[in-house]
Amino acid sequence: MSASERGKMAAGDWYCCLDPELERLRQRARDAVHQHNTMAPDARGSMAPALRALFASVADDVLIEAPFHCSYGINISLGPRVYLNAGCTMLDSGRILIGEGSMLGPGVQIYCAEHHKDVPLRSRGIEIARTVEIGKDVWIGGGAILGGVTIGDGAIVGAGSVVTRDVAAGATVVGNPARPLPQSGKL
Amino acid sequence: MSASERGKMAAGDWYCCLDPELERLRQRARDAVHQHNTMAPDARGSMAPALRALFASVADDVLIEAPFHCSYGINISLGPRVYLNAGCTMLDSGRILIGEGSMLGPGVQIYCAEHHKDVPLRSRGIEIARTVEIGKDVWIGGGAILGGVTIGDGAIVGAGSVVTRDVAAGATVVGNPARPLPQSGKL
Amino acid sequence: MSASERGKMAAGDWYCCLDPELERLRQRARDAVHQHNTMAPDARGSMAPALRALFASVADDVLIEAPFHCSYGINISLGPRVYLNAGCTMLDSGRILIGEGSMLGPGVQIYCAEHHKDVPLRSRGIEIARTVEIGKDVWIGGGAILGGVTIGDGAIVGAGSVVTRDVAAGATVVGNPARPLPQSGKL
Repeated sequence: MSASERGKMAAGDWYCCLDPELERLRQRARDAVHQHNTMAPDARGSMAPALRALFASVADDVLIEAPFHCSYGINISLGPRVYLNAGCTMLDSGRILIGEGSMLGPGVQIYCAEHHKDVPLRSRGIEIARTVEIGKDVWIGGGAILGGVTIGDGAIVGAGSVVTRDVAAGATVVGNPARPLPQSGKL
Repeated sequence: MSASERGKMAAGDWYCCLDPELERLRQRARDAVHQHNTMAPDARGSMAPALRALFASVADDVLIEAPFHCSYGINISLGPRVYLNAGCTMLDSGRILIGEGSMLGPGVQIYCAEHHKDVPLRSRGIEIARTVEIGKDVWIGGGAILGGVTIGDGAIVGAGSVVTRDVAAGATVVGNPARPLPQSGKL
Repeated sequence: MSASERGKMAAGDWYCCLDPELERLRQRARDAVHQHNTMAPDARGSMAPALRALFASVADDVLIEAPFHCSYGINISLGPRVYLNAGCTMLDSGRILIGEGSMLGPGVQIYCAEHHKDVPLRSRGIEIARTVEIGKDVWIGGGAILGGVTIGDGAIVGAGSVVTRDVAAGATVVGNPARPLPQSGKL
């Protein structure tokens, strides 16, 4: 018995995103995202109920500004006091884990999805999902985080960075691609 | 008889964007964009009717996630199976042509408009529009595409790239400004 | 008598953003931003009334496309004919001053807020606010402007730039971090 496309996605194998079950999951995420982004802020509170219901796990005191976007939602886990500023986008075909007290600036993009580089396969919807893990007390000023990256506790990612490799705990990285900031260095 | 500002825009000549006819076209685009971005996903389907009606041409199976933004809409042509992820922005004073099967990641920015560099002219609304042409089966991971650029079939544009020059068919470019990725190179 | 957190923020001292008065101000800004982003374009006109009421000062002929985002709004001053394209974000814990005739492209990010780099302090909400001042007739094609930066009259900031230092009047800067473009230079 072969695995479902959803099963392959979860296992980190190549899968076909045109699968009907995956399309139903994405439609459910669109509905939750729409609720979050159009509710009056007083009613929405820290996050829209449909979005909270969707996530793998989310602490009570997480605050997500609108607008927010995710592709599935079901692969997102947010620890206590996580804060996502306006315009954050999570392509969570892979798992996205964000630790206690971490803060994402406006428009931070997290991309677990990677399309196949071979055109005929890419055009048939073949892609793979890679986990993104962000530690505790991380401050991401802005930019994009690619799939497969781990960011250590207490790290700082400068605005406009494109993070293509792991970031060590306590490090500060900047630039495209993001590189560690030399000690006492000026940008 | 001199050309209208709209005519000059279409001809690739310098024009004045403060023109009342162009303002009416931008207001019509604002209405269509608003409909697309506020409709419930089930009702919106693959794209809001007002947005579909606005475009120069758009295949039936194009899917545009919300939010989306364009300045005119009338200069956008999207081929079969084109997919635009959330937050794509098209300043389509010039023509934007996207070929069959191409996929744009979240927040991709396409800027056909270029303001005049001379301050007194810029301040009177003088600008010029340059075509952006994206081939078939292109994957744009993210970033910005400037006016006048052509991206060849099957090319890949890495997240966070700023594309200021043409990209050859099959090439992968990354960075700001975007440069070809060396073969078998790591970012 | 010690200053309030709001007073420390205004004075450019370290302050605690978890303060209830600051939280009320942010909630008021969320409401105004929501009104601006969800009103029909015809009703909204050049900007939503709640957003106009919030700003420190704003000329009659300012035009702000939706969506827009700001964290407080009360620190934003916009001169005559200022234009903000779709998706601009202003973290205005510090003052943001934009001079007559300046134009911001889509998705421009202005970040006055700077979290403390020491993890225990950052995690208690300690941050500092730095003014961003943009002169007259500036054209910001895109990208992010960090706190403490002054951009001179008539300057041009290329799409995708991350501006970490002052920009001289009349200069053109590009890149991440943004650097002056060599004269007659090609990107």
